Amino acid sequence: MIGVGIVGYGYWGTNLVRNFSDANGSRVVAVCDLITSRFPALQARYPTIKTTSDYRDLLKNSEIDLIVVATPVSSHYEIALHALQAGKHVLVEKPMTATVAEGEQLLEEAAKRNKMIAVDHTFVYTGAVRKIEELVRGDHLGQLYYYDSVRVNLGLFQHDVNVLWDLAVHDLSIMDYILGVQPRAVAATGVAHIAHQPEDIAYLTCLFDNNLIAHFHVNWLAPVKIRRTLIGGDRQMIVYDDLEPSEKIKVYDKGVTLNPTPEGVYQMRVGYRTADMWAPQIPTTEALQVEALQLIECLEQGKTPITDGKVGLRVVRILEAATKSLAQHGQPIAL
Amino acid sequence: MIGVGIVGYGYWGTNLVRNFSDANGSRVVAVCDLITSRFPALQARYPTIKTTSDYRDLLKNSEIDLIVVATPVSSHYEIALHALQAGKHVLVEKPMTATVAEGEQLLEEAAKRNKMIAVDHTFVYTGAVRKIEELVRGDHLGQLYYYDSVRVNLGLFQHDVNVLWDLAVHDLSIMDYILGVQPRAVAATGVAHIAHQPEDIAYLTCLFDNNLIAHFHVNWLAPVKIRRTLIGGDRQMIVYDDLEPSEKIKVYDKGVTLNPTPEGVYQMRVGYRTADMWAPQIPTTEALQVEALQLIECLEQGKTPITDGKVGLRVVRILEAATKSLAQHGQPIAL
Amino acid sequence: MIGVGIVGYGYWGTNLVRNFSDANGSRVVAVCDLITSRFPALQARYPTIKTTSDYRDLLKNSEIDLIVVATPVSSHYEIALHALQAGKHVLVEKPMTATVAEGEQLLEEAAKRNKMIAVDHTFVYTGAVRKIEELVRGDHLGQLYYYDSVRVNLGLFQHDVNVLWDLAVHDLSIMDYILGVQPRAVAATGVAHIAHQPEDIAYLTCLFDNNLIAHFHVNWLAPVKIRRTLIGGDRQMIVYDDLEPSEKIKVYDKGVTLNPTPEGVYQMRVGYRTADMWAPQIPTTEALQVEALQLIECLEQGKTPITDGKVGLRVVRILEAATKSLAQHGQPIAL
Amino acid sequence: MIGVGIVGYGYWGTNLVRNFSDANGSRVVAVCDLITSRFPALQARYPTIKTTSDYRDLLKNSEIDLIVVATPVSSHYEIALHALQAGKHVLVEKPMTATVAEGEQLLEEAAKRNKMIAVDHTFVYTGAVRKIEELVRGDHLGQLYYYDSVRVNLGLFQHDVNVLWDLAVHDLSIMDYILGVQPRAVAATGVAHIAHQPEDIAYLTCLFDNNLIAHFHVNWLAPVKIRRTLIGGDRQMIVYDDLEPSEKIKVYDKGVTLNPTPEGVYQMRVGYRTADMWAPQIPTTEALQVEALQLIECLEQGKTPITDGKVGLRVVRILEAATKSLAQHGQPIAL
Repeated sequence: MIGVGIVGYGYWGTNLVRNFSDANGSRVVAVCDLITSRFPALQARYPTIKTTSDYRDLLKNSEIDLIVVATPVSSHYEIALHALQAGKHVLVEKPMTATVAEGEQLLEEAAKRNKMIAVDHTFVYTGAVRKIEELVRGDHLGQLYYYDSVRVNLGLFQHDVNVLWDLAVHDLSIMDYILGVQPRAVAATGVAHIAHQPEDIAYLTCLFDNNLIAHFHVNWLAPVKIRRTLIGGDRQMIVYDDLEPSEKIKVYDKGVTLNPTPEGVYQMRVGYRTADMWAPQIPTTEALQVEALQLIECLEQGKTPITDGKVGLRVVRILEAATKSLAQHGQPIAL
Repeated sequence: MIGVGIVGYGYWGTNLVRNFSDANGSRVVAVCDLITSRFPALQARYPTIKTTSDYRDLLKNSEIDLIVVATPVSSHYEIALHALQAGKHVLVEKPMTATVAEGEQLLEEAAKRNKMIAVDHTFVYTGAVRKIEELVRGDHLGQLYYYDSVRVNLGLFQHDVNVLWDLAVHDLSIMDYILGVQPRAVAATGVAHIAHQPEDIAYLTCLFDNNLIAHFHVNWLAPVKIRRTLIGGDRQMIVYDDLEPSEKIKVYDKGVTLNPTPEGVYQMRVGYRTADMWAPQIPTTEALQVEALQLIECLEQGKTPITDGKVGLRVVRILEAATKSLAQHGQPIAL
Repeated sequence: MIGVGIVGYGYWGTNLVRNFSDANGSRVVAVCDLITSRFPALQARYPTIKTTSDYRDLLKNSEIDLIVVATPVSSHYEIALHALQAGKHVLVEKPMTATVAEGEQLLEEAAKRNKMIAVDHTFVYTGAVRKIEELVRGDHLGQLYYYDSVRVNLGLFQHDVNVLWDLAVHDLSIMDYILGVQPRAVAATGVAHIAHQPEDIAYLTCLFDNNLIAHFHVNWLAPVKIRRTLIGGDRQMIVYDDLEPSEKIKVYDKGVTLNPTPEGVYQMRVGYRTADMWAPQIPTTEALQVEALQLIECLEQGKTPITDGKVGLRVVRILEAATKSLAQHGQPIAL
Repeated sequence: MIGVGIVGYGYWGTNLVRNFSDANGSRVVAVCDLITSRFPALQARYPTIKTTSDYRDLLKNSEIDLIVVATPVSSHYEIALHALQAGKHVLVEKPMTATVAEGEQLLEEAAKRNKMIAVDHTFVYTGAVRKIEELVRGDHLGQLYYYDSVRVNLGLFQHDVNVLWDLAVHDLSIMDYILGVQPRAVAATGVAHIAHQPEDIAYLTCLFDNNLIAHFHVNWLAPVKIRRTLIGGDRQMIVYDDLEPSEKIKVYDKGVTLNPTPEGVYQMRVGYRTADMWAPQIPTTEALQVEALQLIECLEQGKTPITDGKVGLRVVRILEAATKSLAQHGQPIAL
């Protein structure tokens, strides 16, 4: 039985408490937050959970094996570092850290102390993303052409990080899981429209080897909510619309055909191929429950989680480079 | 009665013949194309129209006042230049020319000979785009935040120009008309996936003064067809979906509110405002008919058309800079 | 402070407990259910609420003013009657009773004892339905032509009542509220496909005076979920799609125009009129909260609730006649 | 080479001329219409086609083998009868005749003279309907539960027939082709809202053996255009949306499962089964071209067309009974 301590009891903290309480193999020992007004309701529902406003109480508690850090990103590094130093395993909210340097130090500390460091890339544990990964790895799409994602809506402004760190982090974590390769350069543009606030709209391109291109459009000021990803390959193509109540994934058997012309290879005629569309059924288990169970299994069996610290660091590396490019009006930055 | 000669009788040429034949004030005198196999059907329908495979025949014909150039872009410059030199007015398909230098010479020649040079930015004459322009100029949107457009589908590859020159040209012409201001820099990324073919997917950012940003996503390899533009202002926001059979334009009375906090102006709280949505009725007159009538009126009254050569040149200028940026992996290019 | 006792703690019972607990002016005193396994969780969350498996305990409890009956429909009559006889006010789930005769007796009993009897037609308290009612009563639609509703999905079979009593009851309650008039006849068709189960698909027409027609399509065996109502008038028309996350109501300024022809009035030409579409903003307060507050106010001030027993009885009267028509393959039944 | 004479040169007549001109194996010899103003344009495009305002000229023309009757329904019987009597084969627009009696006489006359009588149920020749028929006949849907169709829009009023004869005729012809069985009774309701005009909204139920039910909703006064059919079986279910640009047909692998309960067969538990969705590719050949080629083949080889007079008569029989039921407020009528 893994004892869990949760630092940060905001909106997401509620889900963390529920899922680590429900999961076979873990129990929530204690919860910490600076704002204590929501503790009575928590204790009414979970009478055995201890509460505190000082996260150091959790680090000292020998019943706790795993610290979950669900605070604003600026404090991730300090809390996670102290937790590792106190001999705890750590699960950190996304983005894992505010800088690459912080992330590297956490990984180093975890390795030194032989502790797990994982990042809460929740989308990776959804049925939809796992199904897409299965299709891509199973080579149903063939050679990949592009990965294109749009995540826009009205609100909610984050005051400490720009829209890339708030919204694109979801798509970068999904892309990292599905593609399994790293971009070699990024270029980003974006602007801030509200005084004293970070960039609220941004466009990020990731360039890979083999002519693979990825692009992310994120926006806090859009009148409609869009969550749509297109993934194109030379065999099949996927449309993933996370707002669809059913049929979130549509697989199109479409593409280009090349036919030689009398004039020879430099004059190949581009044709088009279209066939059936297919929407695979998707398991609806709550992603955070799948994630909790996987982390517990990893801790029990000494395995590495899918979303370990290296994954978290890869995503932070892209975000850091993108922010640098954005400040330079789109100047490409090599990774 | 304006006599019209049309060079290039492909798919679009058919529409040009029909619209300049139907329009009050013009008649089609002659049509030229290198491929003559479609001429019998043309003459069965329009027995008085002359046909030829040498466009110089049209330039010599004194009954022709206006030459419409509907050939591949690489030949626009030569044909239009000869037409102006022959004392004809000229309407050129989009993009107007293959380079900025070509466009500048055409404008110079037209000015010297006091002839009209116009570009066929057809979308500018649709009811939807004219309604959006009316809303933006009437300050319904307030201070503009962004212009974001997606134009993707499967096919049709152009062999001579990349996807920006083929698809983004539509959106750049619409944006130029609606915003009425020029970007100060562009940055573009994109790749080619098919051997010996130009870039088939591209992303273009235009940066303006006052934190206005525009972005264009164009793709010949998408499994679904999307034609959607978001335009955001601090007062209202527009979603323009050209594939909607009705309600192409939706106007959202949504936005951000800023409320002072006790801590002072640096701590303004960002709130959200949402109200009714409204879909204005849109005239359904065929755009090319509206355009033909406007050009006839301009020729008769010596006025400048909305889509004159300067407009065509502005769009070519963006496309040329974008292609340069694209070759440099997103490097921003000042205009 | 109104003391509330809730009989039936299933899915809907949970919402009733939460809303009468949250509402200013009421508190939940006790909950009754034959299945007691969910009581511990209830008491963890609401420690002051008493629990029992015998609803007579609630009738005897002098702290309880209002009994909410949320049991299967076959038991509504008995429980509600006993509650009224015990001097309690009563709110009954929809459909109010299994027969018209039962409903009439409840109304009689309530009148005799001067107690409130209300029915939980929840949809009547949603922002969308209240907005439609406002538009219809405000004569925005003009003379009403038709009311057409589709409510279909896969599942959930009810074993004791057919699909009309399970699904059409929602739409009949909405229609009753919006139109405020009674049909003079009904005709219904439908079939049962699963052995030993009630009708799973049904079509119901209600005929009114003045050529107003209403129709309801309900189905437990549809592959997709549809919740859409069309309401047509000679001035404007409404599409109400309850599955739309925003823009649930669209108001179309469309209709028919009649133009005299030279041949005279019997040869009026039918023309069409179309203008803007408009989607009014809709309050998002939870319907059951609005309802709870309204009931409390009615009890405190001796007023009649919008969804009183007479309304509940009108809907049961249509359902009973529809079921009779259905058994006779569509034979119209006068009301 | 089949010589074709077309009586009625309205909107649909234009398509008939084009398709019988394009089809291998037929040529259009002559066209008749009372309104002659559109003949010059016809002859400019098809110089060899003769024109007349007296259909008897076509009956006398020995080059004509097939008379196509594309006039208002009230004149179908007379023209088709004369054509058969003149020794011509006949293709009649839908609905085939205004009454069952007329249809029976046409079939008798055709049989007596050994001529083909066919009805232009165009939808039967679309790729979508043929694919659905293939799925149903191939038993992909299993035992059929229901056929539910909605065909509504604003306009166009027909002055001589009610909305069932104008719109439901399409769906009845599709259903007849797909199901291949006849209903045993019908029940219809509907009303007329415009003075001196026929019913503009109607609901029609068809009852079959084996608990199969079909329903049709047609409306000339709807603010939105809907063309959607649901077909449910115990194995799979189909949604056919004719307005979808692609994916007109979606096949859902969904349904009900029955599990015995400890209490025995009368207490079967109804469960739900859901799996992948699938949208088969559909050929996009123009339906009228497919139909023309099939009719030519039938005439050349002495075969019976899919949409022969018997099919036309079956649909008229349903429409006649439905109109009778409608006049009696939904009274069921046995067939």
